Amino acid sequence: MNHIKRLAIVGGTHGNELTGVYLVKKFHKYPDLIKRSSFETISLLGNTQAIALCKRYIEQDLNRCFTGQNLVTDKNLSYEQLRAKEIQKILQPQNQDSVNAIIDLHTTTANMGLCIILGTMHPLLLRLAAHLSAINPFLKVYIHRESKNSGFLRSLSELGLAIEVGAVAQGILNAELFKQTEQLVYSILDFFEECNQGKIPQHNNTLTLYQFFCAVDYPRNENGEIKAMIHPQLQFRDYEPLYPGDPIFLTFENEEILYEGESIVYPIFINEAAYYEKGIAMYFSHKQVINI
Amino acid sequence: MNHIKRLAIVGGTHGNELTGVYLVKKFHKYPDLIKRSSFETISLLGNTQAIALCKRYIEQDLNRCFTGQNLVTDKNLSYEQLRAKEIQKILQPQNQDSVNAIIDLHTTTANMGLCIILGTMHPLLLRLAAHLSAINPFLKVYIHRESKNSGFLRSLSELGLAIEVGAVAQGILNAELFKQTEQLVYSILDFFEECNQGKIPQHNNTLTLYQFFCAVDYPRNENGEIKAMIHPQLQFRDYEPLYPGDPIFLTFENEEILYEGESIVYPIFINEAAYYEKGIAMYFSHKQVINI
Repeated sequence: MNHIKRLAIVGGTHGNELTGVYLVKKFHKYPDLIKRSSFETISLLGNTQAIALCKRYIEQDLNRCFTGQNLVTDKNLSYEQLRAKEIQKILQPQNQDSVNAIIDLHTTTANMGLCIILGTMHPLLLRLAAHLSAINPFLKVYIHRESKNSGFLRSLSELGLAIEVGAVAQGILNAELFKQTEQLVYSILDFFEECNQGKIPQHNNTLTLYQFFCAVDYPRNENGEIKAMIHPQLQFRDYEPLYPGDPIFLTFENEEILYEGESIVYPIFINEAAYYEKGIAMYFSHKQVINI
Repeated sequence: MNHIKRLAIVGGTHGNELTGVYLVKKFHKYPDLIKRSSFETISLLGNTQAIALCKRYIEQDLNRCFTGQNLVTDKNLSYEQLRAKEIQKILQPQNQDSVNAIIDLHTTTANMGLCIILGTMHPLLLRLAAHLSAINPFLKVYIHRESKNSGFLRSLSELGLAIEVGAVAQGILNAELFKQTEQLVYSILDFFEECNQGKIPQHNNTLTLYQFFCAVDYPRNENGEIKAMIHPQLQFRDYEPLYPGDPIFLTFENEEILYEGESIVYPIFINEAAYYEKGIAMYFSHKQVINI
């Protein structure tokens, strides 16, 4: 199994997701909170200019800028592409070990509760997910397999993951979700500490996962404007089963639009504010129970 | 009593409060919805540039720009000051009657439910509030008495009011709250229609109001940064009584900060995202039942 030498916690990859921003500020003030004996933990703020303005980003989404191409070129870079290169140099310095685990802190306006997002099915990540699920049965585990060029910050490390917590509006702190996120960070650090000491916590042999299946856009008119909202019966129902024929959108004229798929799906990221411009009303996922 | 000749509905005074934006787009598409026989209704989008970018504002809060001073000068105006002048010309045209009622559509990340905000105790506004409260017992009525120079859009008219609906994150639509806001607009139009026809609806002789008392900021450090969050026990508890000694904030170190006032207050606008930069964690209001 991997030995963790350096781990990075990043907050404010999106500048208006304040939970991560203020958690990292707390870790800067009280570094002992994230110190573990067997590895080094660094914590840093992601999109510093966007944080200062309480915006998601300045020119483009930083959390799509960590692509191989962006990170090697020097030409015509946006602020976020430059910042991605800076962060990469911190996490993968030339004369020092790269971090081999990343915790990237996010929030969402969707009712995702306390969730970890994994980009790979790395065995140690699955073991971590099972451990965290045993500690907190409300935790959800979402797998969104990523290509090398997905550009997510967490993709810089084999053991990269995001914590995604909601529902919380952009630009605010919710104390209860702040505390839950903080506790989850400590649980992850403790897990890696025990792994390094040869004591991989064994709790479950099964793990419930939600696997990305497809993205679903809002119905739009010929000008690209949305012409329907998330249906009230679906709002806040992340991770719940959606059956063929269930209402999914409500047009501004009060007409229901039904889910026309043939199989049960589990919508997540329902009504995430930042995804309107990306053309995403929600993701459909498949629920899976695996043995690990 | 006043005779209503022209009434204006404004959405998107804040560009990331989508309920008003999409309601006004709906009214543009279906003008009959807001047509009444005894007065003219116009509907318009407020901060058009900010709406296009899904931001609250470009340079400054449009809803503080309707001051006498801004509206007469031509020098060094911000985008919002210019837009305020344009809107004023639409609502108070030189060769036509001014609108004598304004409905300004807003949303908030605070759990304000369905609320109307009145800037004055005008008898007809109070009668309207009593009528709407009778139709919908969940409606809240908030009075924030405004000086002539408060700069609120609604202050352009003697019968100006805001609809404030939440909790809803900036940048998203909540279908249930959209429908409630839409219905409330129609109820207000119907009320003025009946008034014009000499049939002022009489329902209640009493009206429950929440009157502005003071604004409360977050605890801040020497750099002006917040050092506490809304206490979990207060979050989402708008309009509920806060007693001396009740917890109000939670510091990042998990210390409770208690309400040290001597009388019961009713906090509202708790944890509104746009108020962090204004130095407002919430307003304290006093609850009052008046006879009208």
